[in-house]
Amino acid sequence: MTEVISQRRIRAMDTALRERARAVIPGGMYGHLSVNALPAEYPQFYQRAEGAHVWDVDGNEYVDFMCSFGPILLGYQHPKVEQAAAAQRALGNTMPGPGAVMVELAELLTGRVAHADWAIFAKNGTDATTVSLMVARAATGRPTVLAAAGAYHGAVPWFSHRRDGVTPQDHANFRYYRFNDIASVEQAAAEGDGDVAAIIVSPFRHDAGFDQEMLRPEFARQLRALCDRIGAALVIDEVRAGFRLHDGGSWEPIGVAPDLSAWSKAIANGYPLAAVLGSARYAEAAARLFVTGSFWFQSVPMAAAVATITAVREEGAVPAMARIGTLLREGLEREAAEAGVRISQTGPVQLPNLSFPGDENHARASAFCAAAAGHGVIFHPRHNWFVSAAHTESDVERALAAARAGFRTVREQFTQD
Amino acid sequence: MTEVISQRRIRAMDTALRERARAVIPGGMYGHLSVNALPAEYPQFYQRAEGAHVWDVDGNEYVDFMCSFGPILLGYQHPKVEQAAAAQRALGNTMPGPGAVMVELAELLTGRVAHADWAIFAKNGTDATTVSLMVARAATGRPTVLAAAGAYHGAVPWFSHRRDGVTPQDHANFRYYRFNDIASVEQAAAEGDGDVAAIIVSPFRHDAGFDQEMLRPEFARQLRALCDRIGAALVIDEVRAGFRLHDGGSWEPIGVAPDLSAWSKAIANGYPLAAVLGSARYAEAAARLFVTGSFWFQSVPMAAAVATITAVREEGAVPAMARIGTLLREGLEREAAEAGVRISQTGPVQLPNLSFPGDENHARASAFCAAAAGHGVIFHPRHNWFVSAAHTESDVERALAAARAGFRTVREQFTQD
Repeated sequence: MTEVISQRRIRAMDTALRERARAVIPGGMYGHLSVNALPAEYPQFYQRAEGAHVWDVDGNEYVDFMCSFGPILLGYQHPKVEQAAAAQRALGNTMPGPGAVMVELAELLTGRVAHADWAIFAKNGTDATTVSLMVARAATGRPTVLAAAGAYHGAVPWFSHRRDGVTPQDHANFRYYRFNDIASVEQAAAEGDGDVAAIIVSPFRHDAGFDQEMLRPEFARQLRALCDRIGAALVIDEVRAGFRLHDGGSWEPIGVAPDLSAWSKAIANGYPLAAVLGSARYAEAAARLFVTGSFWFQSVPMAAAVATITAVREEGAVPAMARIGTLLREGLEREAAEAGVRISQTGPVQLPNLSFPGDENHARASAFCAAAAGHGVIFHPRHNWFVSAAHTESDVERALAAARAGFRTVREQFTQD
Repeated sequence: MTEVISQRRIRAMDTALRERARAVIPGGMYGHLSVNALPAEYPQFYQRAEGAHVWDVDGNEYVDFMCSFGPILLGYQHPKVEQAAAAQRALGNTMPGPGAVMVELAELLTGRVAHADWAIFAKNGTDATTVSLMVARAATGRPTVLAAAGAYHGAVPWFSHRRDGVTPQDHANFRYYRFNDIASVEQAAAEGDGDVAAIIVSPFRHDAGFDQEMLRPEFARQLRALCDRIGAALVIDEVRAGFRLHDGGSWEPIGVAPDLSAWSKAIANGYPLAAVLGSARYAEAAARLFVTGSFWFQSVPMAAAVATITAVREEGAVPAMARIGTLLREGLEREAAEAGVRISQTGPVQLPNLSFPGDENHARASAFCAAAAGHGVIFHPRHNWFVSAAHTESDVERALAAARAGFRTVREQFTQD
């Protein structure tokens, strides 16, 4: 299988575009899709995407396990989503007001996500996390937010982990706790005088650059009890994981309901949309806010979202992703063992994460992913991957063949412990 | 002309949708497209849009002078923009990386906007204003931003004029000046000890609820000189006005170049896109930032932007808007005089603004706009309007017929001074 995939991929167009980009885009590229910190085997620019496959600008094809970092849940160009979007587009998208589809979508989401009684739509995941905290502050009249140290809730000053472009005042109302450690949350809460508006938390720990950590259900219940005791809002940031773990809220299987949840990425299978969902108790505070954006009321992404969320359940997308994710995880485990390379796989199988114990600066992960990219499979050395419902057993086979080359590279280039 | 347009418009679907919306959307609707504070004649939900015309969910047709609050510059469903978007969409939109079109667009914009050497793309106008300030802070290592009191730069905590959901720390690094008043800017700058990272300013004063105020060119030159003297970045917020006043930067005709400019709304004729443009001096600081969003690299809005920006010049969109805007302004002046109603029209004709002197709580403006909406023309009583290149003389005639009814209503309902 590996033999038919050449490691010598054409790069002429990508190279030329990078050169042109360096002249007109700071650093040549920015943000999470920049390959500046990835091995040279990664293309920067893409031409085409369909199902679980993508083509770079030089026409090289890949099995893609990043799904654009999450937004693609049913596969690229999913027919039902594209049909719904096209039908709405023929009528209107950005109009002087929302379409009927906004109400339909709000009804669908509040029916699907157990804790939700209302929805506010926006564009970026960061819009949703930001508005969630604004709702909590408006409802409680308090300023402070407790967040897990190192958790990602958006690349804006008040959530940023960087110093460039960020002021101390941006973080002034945040205090930090350790994920899965209720004592650290209690301590962070106690540091102020009843000033906590919200506790924000991810469904599980998925900080880039680290092994993932599953939620201890007891931690979720303790957070809920603490929020009830101190009158703070429990906010789940579903932006990355939403609808990949469950076809409702990610904590529904353990029976813990947040007050507010922030959604984006996969809810419209690649169309730009975000949502804040909230319980009735927070509706009045939400109605007092003035939050808006030029494109927040577009009808096409909302039509795509209705089709996506409907398909998630109708097509059994979550079990499909779980099945493929399990095949991939078990296969990677096998391939690593055969190559005599130690690995660590963490988190839910729908959001795979592979690391190499003791891997300084992700050197082994980078070598592994470089080899995989050379064999036509897109993984990521420092960020969790994403499985979609469009990935097939054949895609997993190709991924495992590429991984075999990757593990062989790691074994050859690095001393094993 | 007025006689053929019925004032008794069907409202059954809109009424039913509002009722459903109240159950699942806080306050029934939020943000700038909510009609909660507008007269009952305005529909909340829209079904269709084409050229300069829109249809509400009950099938009532309107000439639309809001252009979705700016994004529609060439008219809804502009063929060349839709063709470019469709061609890109058939290949891919949200992919694991940007497409070649991102480089093409950055080259086009830096060629078109005189001060710009580089571009960063985002989704909301607020993303662009926020990132502009982050670049300025990263470049200068200083925290403070001077902004015009009352100016709108986004509905997020640090720009918000409201208290709900906003903390004092969100505004801690802002000081305020009066538009067109350099002494007030000098004073705001002097209040800190060389701490100014940026001065942000709109191309002209377009604060909602107030008469607009044209820029005094001398003020622009004084701002430029002040920024040079204190080493701060001059940031123009082009989000609302960009490409309506000029087919490059709005201050190019007066020869004043900003360091950074924030763009969104009309740059892709309704497709969701924002851009920060900057001069070479700020490229290094921009490259140090980590700013990103799940949908910031989508290829379809970028393809739409290339088509839009190309068409703006090729189709002479700015002179077309200026011509129609002038016809509208002169016609409104005539109709008001004939009705014996005093009005004030301010700002550039491409962004019309009509008010009634001494109009407490915009009561006259609301009555005027209610009558116009009843006659099938969408204006706004508290926000500037937007002309597009798709508006025709016949649209202006319909607008003036509706305005005639509006001025008559004002004359009948209010005592004239």
